[in-house]
Amino acid sequence: MYEKRVKKLKDNVAEMGFDAILVNDEKNIYYLSGFPWGAKLLIPVEEESILFVYSVNYEAARSLARNVIVELVEVGEKIERKVLDAILKRRFKSIGFDKMDVAEYQRIKDSLGKVRFELLGDIIWSLRKVKDEIELALIRRAAELTSCGMKRALEVIKPGMRVWEVAAEAEYEMRKMGSSGVAFDTIVCSGPETAYPHGGLGEREIKDGDLVVIDIGARYHGYCADMTRTVIVGEGTWIQKHIHETVRRAQRIAINRIRAGVKAKDVDEAARKFIAENGYDKYFIHNLGHGVGLDIHEPPTLGPLSEDLLLAGNVVTVEPGIYIPGLGGARMEDMILIEEEGIKKLTGINGE
Amino acid sequence: MYEKRVKKLKDNVAEMGFDAILVNDEKNIYYLSGFPWGAKLLIPVEEESILFVYSVNYEAARSLARNVIVELVEVGEKIERKVLDAILKRRFKSIGFDKMDVAEYQRIKDSLGKVRFELLGDIIWSLRKVKDEIELALIRRAAELTSCGMKRALEVIKPGMRVWEVAAEAEYEMRKMGSSGVAFDTIVCSGPETAYPHGGLGEREIKDGDLVVIDIGARYHGYCADMTRTVIVGEGTWIQKHIHETVRRAQRIAINRIRAGVKAKDVDEAARKFIAENGYDKYFIHNLGHGVGLDIHEPPTLGPLSEDLLLAGNVVTVEPGIYIPGLGGARMEDMILIEEEGIKKLTGINGE
Repeated sequence: MYEKRVKKLKDNVAEMGFDAILVNDEKNIYYLSGFPWGAKLLIPVEEESILFVYSVNYEAARSLARNVIVELVEVGEKIERKVLDAILKRRFKSIGFDKMDVAEYQRIKDSLGKVRFELLGDIIWSLRKVKDEIELALIRRAAELTSCGMKRALEVIKPGMRVWEVAAEAEYEMRKMGSSGVAFDTIVCSGPETAYPHGGLGEREIKDGDLVVIDIGARYHGYCADMTRTVIVGEGTWIQKHIHETVRRAQRIAINRIRAGVKAKDVDEAARKFIAENGYDKYFIHNLGHGVGLDIHEPPTLGPLSEDLLLAGNVVTVEPGIYIPGLGGARMEDMILIEEEGIKKLTGINGE
Repeated sequence: MYEKRVKKLKDNVAEMGFDAILVNDEKNIYYLSGFPWGAKLLIPVEEESILFVYSVNYEAARSLARNVIVELVEVGEKIERKVLDAILKRRFKSIGFDKMDVAEYQRIKDSLGKVRFELLGDIIWSLRKVKDEIELALIRRAAELTSCGMKRALEVIKPGMRVWEVAAEAEYEMRKMGSSGVAFDTIVCSGPETAYPHGGLGEREIKDGDLVVIDIGARYHGYCADMTRTVIVGEGTWIQKHIHETVRRAQRIAINRIRAGVKAKDVDEAARKFIAENGYDKYFIHNLGHGVGLDIHEPPTLGPLSEDLLLAGNVVTVEPGIYIPGLGGARMEDMILIEEEGIKKLTGINGE
């Protein structure tokens, strides 16, 4: 599969008129070589790829990396120098790169002299946002683990628990089942802190009558999942129940709009319109969703300003939320796989 | 405490001849304002700081951020534009920044015209690497939680377990005690995969006679801890015991060299020399240690190329390792706080 991904990338790099691409982002390197701790990956259009690694990772790279020449950067050597030498030796006239800190960019740019050196980040995203079968198998598993963690969280939650104790149970469940860790910092928040989409500082004791928002994700072989549920602990008030029901229905409406070929912003608009009709428009303060893969937030974006078109192979979250300062909030989030015909919901508990 | 940190930073910015600093790094923003999800923080030398946040974090920022004016970036607004307007309105002639992606740098640089716009990253590190009392209290707690997680891992480990099951127990223990998550991806690896300092792909079943390396860290209110132990499951071979004992003794030798005022590279050299005397020099393939704080890897660096001088208030890891391809490896890591007089070991189990 790595050959196929690299082949497509090379075609795109060549088409843009570049001789090679220098890949800096760890997730991109993993996507293209299977190696999770690579430092830099140089992919010339006409030659084999070179993975530059420090001595700390050399043996691991020789064993785990696929379809690359592994180049050792010894203690005392500068990795930038090794990469520059590889570029200059081959007399490349134009190099793209995916991502770079400005300090490093300036050093490399200066050393490359007349060689064209430009950001080509989007061309890797154009590949990564359409998942292949192997990626989908890993994402499905991450989503299953996450659904199990959520089920556990919902079972244990009760007044008197600290929010982190709920997080502990959900994470432990996912881990015991084979998750390789969390895809992002778990959010469990309760009461007025549910009005903050990212939660509070994580110390609060859950009280009877609280809204509790649980936003978790397992990671599996590098791939992320993302899922949110909101519950009312004990008897809820009318307004708590109403915002809870409104996000649930807004989510269903948005999911029904998702198809390959639909504009991402139209899906956002469907949920946003329903929430507005219920009087909560100014309390839906974020995008409807985002792509998920090796990164927890990826293209495509489901938001009012998005220019993305949804494609078969995209995996996106759908997560409408309503957040009322002082009162609290609710969010419901699931992952949706877009197929040639129709969609699949990847997260859920007993079909919900 | 935020006033004090910001005051010191402003003094440094002014001394470098700049009118303001634009802070992009999330950890730096947290360090200077207490807000963990801030998007950008503009700190003019002569005025109050401005924290730019998207609507998703606006209410949380108003409640949690300290000593800043919170500026809302609404859906549909560009945060870069808001920051640029704030800079141009004040007619600043020179702005520093801490860190930036090259794409953003080029956009801002173009818009700023003749305004001097330069990287000033090190001046925040010069503050962050010397921890204040509040930071030390949080780091101590993170280290305690980590020691408890390690104790648990060592108790449960036995042949037949998958490495991730050991990770699950350690993480669960830390979480139940109040950790806010892990400081980095937990490493538990066994057998030949212990020859890779970052471990394998995390699937292996632990076997009798395996070396097992456990490298874990709790996070507490943003602060990281980092600790490693290696055990031999069952009866070890002579060479397994010898590399294990060699890293243990190398660590003790290095820790004994640590004092405020000592060169970081001399501490590395002490451990490296002892390991070389035992014939393993080419198998110690990484630096001896690193600073720990809000980031898991920070200045100062304990390595052969380091130019750092150790200072009171630094918190560093000391983690010699020996990695023999095909055979396996061992590493022992603890966190050391450097004080005006002497040092304190922050991690450990029953004093070990």
